[in-house]
Amino acid sequence: MIRPVGSDELKPLFVYDPEEHDALAHEAESLPSVVISSSAAGNAVMLGGGYFTPFEGYMNVADAVSVAETMRTTDGRFFPVPILNLVPDVSAIEGASRIALRDPNVEGNPVIAVQDVQAIEEVTDEQMALMTEKVFRTLDMEHPGVKAFNSQGRFAISGPIRVLNFSYFQTDFPDTFRTAVEIRNEIKERGWEKVVAFQTRNPMHRAHEELCKMAMEAVNADGLVIHMLLGKLKPGDIPAPVRDAAIRKMVELYFPPNTVMITGYGFDMLYAGPREAVLHAYFRQNMGATHFIIGRDHAGVGDYYGAFDAQTIFDTEVPPGALEIEIFRADHTAYSKKLGKVVMMRDAPDHTKEDFILLSGTKVREMLGQGIAPPPEFSRPEVAQILMDYYQSQQQQ
Amino acid sequence: MIRPVGSDELKPLFVYDPEEHDALAHEAESLPSVVISSSAAGNAVMLGGGYFTPFEGYMNVADAVSVAETMRTTDGRFFPVPILNLVPDVSAIEGASRIALRDPNVEGNPVIAVQDVQAIEEVTDEQMALMTEKVFRTLDMEHPGVKAFNSQGRFAISGPIRVLNFSYFQTDFPDTFRTAVEIRNEIKERGWEKVVAFQTRNPMHRAHEELCKMAMEAVNADGLVIHMLLGKLKPGDIPAPVRDAAIRKMVELYFPPNTVMITGYGFDMLYAGPREAVLHAYFRQNMGATHFIIGRDHAGVGDYYGAFDAQTIFDTEVPPGALEIEIFRADHTAYSKKLGKVVMMRDAPDHTKEDFILLSGTKVREMLGQGIAPPPEFSRPEVAQILMDYYQSQQQQ
Repeated sequence: MIRPVGSDELKPLFVYDPEEHDALAHEAESLPSVVISSSAAGNAVMLGGGYFTPFEGYMNVADAVSVAETMRTTDGRFFPVPILNLVPDVSAIEGASRIALRDPNVEGNPVIAVQDVQAIEEVTDEQMALMTEKVFRTLDMEHPGVKAFNSQGRFAISGPIRVLNFSYFQTDFPDTFRTAVEIRNEIKERGWEKVVAFQTRNPMHRAHEELCKMAMEAVNADGLVIHMLLGKLKPGDIPAPVRDAAIRKMVELYFPPNTVMITGYGFDMLYAGPREAVLHAYFRQNMGATHFIIGRDHAGVGDYYGAFDAQTIFDTEVPPGALEIEIFRADHTAYSKKLGKVVMMRDAPDHTKEDFILLSGTKVREMLGQGIAPPPEFSRPEVAQILMDYYQSQQQQ
Repeated sequence: MIRPVGSDELKPLFVYDPEEHDALAHEAESLPSVVISSSAAGNAVMLGGGYFTPFEGYMNVADAVSVAETMRTTDGRFFPVPILNLVPDVSAIEGASRIALRDPNVEGNPVIAVQDVQAIEEVTDEQMALMTEKVFRTLDMEHPGVKAFNSQGRFAISGPIRVLNFSYFQTDFPDTFRTAVEIRNEIKERGWEKVVAFQTRNPMHRAHEELCKMAMEAVNADGLVIHMLLGKLKPGDIPAPVRDAAIRKMVELYFPPNTVMITGYGFDMLYAGPREAVLHAYFRQNMGATHFIIGRDHAGVGDYYGAFDAQTIFDTEVPPGALEIEIFRADHTAYSKKLGKVVMMRDAPDHTKEDFILLSGTKVREMLGQGIAPPPEFSRPEVAQILMDYYQSQQQQ
């Protein structure tokens, strides 16, 4: 089985021993504490579940800057983005060597992790700008990731953490949230060797289904892990239960048995395009995938990144040998009326737009809301039905 | 795929819709509330995860008594034991039509579920005795299940519930706790048709391993679900991470790929022997198993039950047609020196005790603590190593 990055085994930072867990939770209540950023909480969840193995906590500024610049810490360990605990105010934890980190995303701000403080450093404007520029390739505060990164505060608290819970992800998504430990275990149980991972946060239409099948066929995969980004709903988002039902129906009807796992993870999207693609590949290797699908404008937003920057970064910036997982490089896929099947658009250079069945997201939502199923070349009818039921129930409210 | 009991689909009572979940959690904070018994909380967890489908909450006294007597509610629905919310004091919820149920097993007693109150009834001595006698086949207060059942209080709060969390089970056992929904989904994903379920709360030695293999072979199963009872540690118990590691190692080395799922569920043992065996079969059908292994003195304690009462109850008391899951009836298994393999003891009537390799639990723990591996006929060496490492680390403390 593929090894975790830089380690022979996963090192989840969740405290599994119940006695130790109780003791730590108890101790945490009397520690100086700070409410951390949503981004830092997402890091804690990923560290807790083993996705960021072998890292053991938040980086100091030197490591964060080094990672932003070179994807290596000062002592040479590979990681694609800074893992930071940035807060605006450290007066409550002044002088403390051990602190409780409180979760901004759960009511009452319960403790999500306990951190041993190695240093508290103030990040300079230059360092923030440097990291922003390197990670996001822009300083534009309109970029949602740039804005979130720069709105956290300027004090970087570094040091190892131990994780007490998985924030709201495990509790709100009890049937889909998985740690890297669980997914790795299940891949091993299933006896899969070659495993393709697919990132999504939406229901999958035929283009996505066929893309996964193309990747599986190309690499002769034993299985596919659909790995959904879980999180709070944004306006227009489809609720998790509806998305899950639509994906399960697709898998049940259109994939062979024992070739797909449907799972989810909790993290805040960075919208960092290429760098985030590398991060995505990193934690998919940790969960046991051997191949990761990266399509057009992966993890991008607006026009900040070139269509294939998230693929070429693996050639130009990822240090050779840093990752063992392989990238399946994809283009948009769509149904070709000429060829009578879903194809990758780059494989049909003679096609014009009119040769494909293309529908915008807005158009599809509009149709579904009116109870009109998109053509079967675009959406599987059984999947469309689940989505139509949802949109129509929404309109009745 | 096998249907859930009395239903075409699972009806988990966990509130999956995030908005509804938030609203209910918020509402719960201002509702009259009561700290429920550990047993009632276990029922909420099982109802939440779909294990007790199609039941929608706690029974009233008439249904509870009827179930205890006949395994049928007053309107004829099958269930093997009362699902009760018994509390000692209802003054705080007097007159309330909707109440919050607080979890006795989590610090701070957070709300685990919201209940619509249909009735609050005082259970009479006669009714308590009748239910106890029918469910446990004894009135002896030394019986741990009888004691727990009769120590909850006398007010039965009946009515449907909606579940907000899975108590400490999901948070303390993030890699193993599964809802019935999850297990059913995964069985479907794997494409298994015939599925054997095995109940355990301990590491598995060769006798258990071979028992599972015998059952799988006998019914020509596609897969085995090891379904571990999760819970607070009792003195002498092996911590969950050690047990899990030992079971995973056994599966990895001694079962073919894609034939075993390692999972867990949260509930308080009743030690009700035969009746609990029926309950075990019930919720294994709900999670998608087609066969369930019941051995000697299943779910028993002390000398309260005959060795095979937990098997014969399926012939004598379970109403025909109530369950679709089939029982694999087992005896103790042990390595026969004469035959050179693990056999079911009833299949070797010519054997004396000396013909088997038998070790008491106490003896095994003693050996492991001294760093002496039990013979390979008793324990797989790789499994023994994990347990020895644990016991020896304990002794050093």
